[in-house]
Amino acid sequence: MFDVNLTTLIDYLGTFAFAISGIRLASAKNFDWFGAYIVGLATAIGGGTIRDLLLGLTPFWMLQPSYLVVTAVALIFVIVFGRYVIRLSNTFFIFDTIGLGLFVVVGIERSLGAGFPFWVAIIMGMITGSAGGVMRDIFINEEPLIFRKDIYALACIFGGLIFFASDWTGLPQLITQVLTISSVILVRILSVKYHISLPILKGSENEKQD
Amino acid sequence: MFDVNLTTLIDYLGTFAFAISGIRLASAKNFDWFGAYIVGLATAIGGGTIRDLLLGLTPFWMLQPSYLVVTAVALIFVIVFGRYVIRLSNTFFIFDTIGLGLFVVVGIERSLGAGFPFWVAIIMGMITGSAGGVMRDIFINEEPLIFRKDIYALACIFGGLIFFASDWTGLPQLITQVLTISSVILVRILSVKYHISLPILKGSENEKQD
Amino acid sequence: MFDVNLTTLIDYLGTFAFAISGIRLASAKNFDWFGAYIVGLATAIGGGTIRDLLLGLTPFWMLQPSYLVVTAVALIFVIVFGRYVIRLSNTFFIFDTIGLGLFVVVGIERSLGAGFPFWVAIIMGMITGSAGGVMRDIFINEEPLIFRKDIYALACIFGGLIFFASDWTGLPQLITQVLTISSVILVRILSVKYHISLPILKGSENEKQD
Repeated sequence: MFDVNLTTLIDYLGTFAFAISGIRLASAKNFDWFGAYIVGLATAIGGGTIRDLLLGLTPFWMLQPSYLVVTAVALIFVIVFGRYVIRLSNTFFIFDTIGLGLFVVVGIERSLGAGFPFWVAIIMGMITGSAGGVMRDIFINEEPLIFRKDIYALACIFGGLIFFASDWTGLPQLITQVLTISSVILVRILSVKYHISLPILKGSENEKQD
Repeated sequence: MFDVNLTTLIDYLGTFAFAISGIRLASAKNFDWFGAYIVGLATAIGGGTIRDLLLGLTPFWMLQPSYLVVTAVALIFVIVFGRYVIRLSNTFFIFDTIGLGLFVVVGIERSLGAGFPFWVAIIMGMITGSAGGVMRDIFINEEPLIFRKDIYALACIFGGLIFFASDWTGLPQLITQVLTISSVILVRILSVKYHISLPILKGSENEKQD
Repeated sequence: MFDVNLTTLIDYLGTFAFAISGIRLASAKNFDWFGAYIVGLATAIGGGTIRDLLLGLTPFWMLQPSYLVVTAVALIFVIVFGRYVIRLSNTFFIFDTIGLGLFVVVGIERSLGAGFPFWVAIIMGMITGSAGGVMRDIFINEEPLIFRKDIYALACIFGGLIFFASDWTGLPQLITQVLTISSVILVRILSVKYHISLPILKGSENEKQD
């Protein structure tokens, strides 16, 4: 059920960190264990699921149960270690960011494998990395965080551009993958460290929904 | 347009009860008739639609219009009988619960028919039974009820396990179906009657979204 | 990348107007540029995406990047012209309504092309025209506007009925398209001008979610 190599190890660590992020936000809403599990799962596999539906493929987690198991481990982890998890925020930020980089690579390669052009692949890399967080925020009934704060989805797009620049240069696949993941991590860390974010689109009262 | 046998009768009763649940919650939000119809429809067919998209099948309600008609009847019922519907809560709870059991069986059998393994089928049984309610709560802009209250999705999973235990034992299909539906109904009724629910995952202020 | 003929011109104007509507509502929520872009995109292409997933087709915007470009232009337009956009409300209402009519025709024809019967096609016409607005409202965390206000989705369904009446009469395709678009525009304008809307479904406190 679990393959063991570096890619899958990073994949599971990323899944674990994404799931933890969902489970923690669900706990702030006093969801029960089941609700927290589903929110964790949506965070971890939601992006890849939307990607696979758009690409016309069977969602990846329906082909092997390991992602469900990793999310269950994340839930047990939060139940057992509770508030201590908060102290590990930096550790999870690292996992989460490495996972984000890998998710981008997985999304791009899966799209190219399905015969789509590079600009679709870049979008799918971004969706793989960030749509799970949007699904999480819809489930907990909040405005999606990535629409208001931080460079997150843009880090995925930047990574996607690096992927194709590297690929176009003729670099070997492994180098392309490492460069892509590194660039996602770099942009994400720099933007958080230096509080770099996109401008807010200013609205006025007149523009309210009704 | 309407087949008549016990399975489809239960199917339509379940659809009707699910639709009523959506329409009533939409009315509490002062949605108009159209909004109430769509929320009723999402509640009744949303789970099966998500299931079919994940399985790569054409959504079941696109193959025959009866589900749209049953939901329209439910809307007319609420418009005509209004507040009296509330007094029938227990009746609808029974319909809803029997429908839930049947939806689980339908979801499992449809997944197996599409060639997926048993653990995917159990998840699809749960999605068929409970994702419509989540879609309903997203449409009315509330935190999904099943993430916070009662044993609902877990009753579906329990039913799924009974299905495979029964199937593995070699019992005839009809017995397996009846056992599955009965076990979903039993778990659901016991959990409501004795207020059995999953533990809440405790959060802290620090875990807020931002 | 951009075809030039009347249909595509209307298509891009409609996409532009739909995107503006999403971007303006995102700005009222103080989303950043990226968030506003995604909400604009969801409004413009969300309906067609859901339609294509239900029909089992590759989402239309993955086949050519023009819709992403038009939405980017809409974002730049709002960033540059800001509050002045509000004064153009009537202009956008016209674009939006013409776009709505065209989206209905596109949705119907794409469904028939995929082999579905007329009642599915009418629903897909409605989904093409109105599901993007629902997605927009979920992203900005509001109750969907079309569930509470105005004749919007019903204008799409009326247009769909006109399409099939015209088609059944044996009128040429172009006439059928023009009649459909005109009838959607007419119903929409009349309902807004004379404040015609569907009855609200009255609820009571007892019907609250929990």
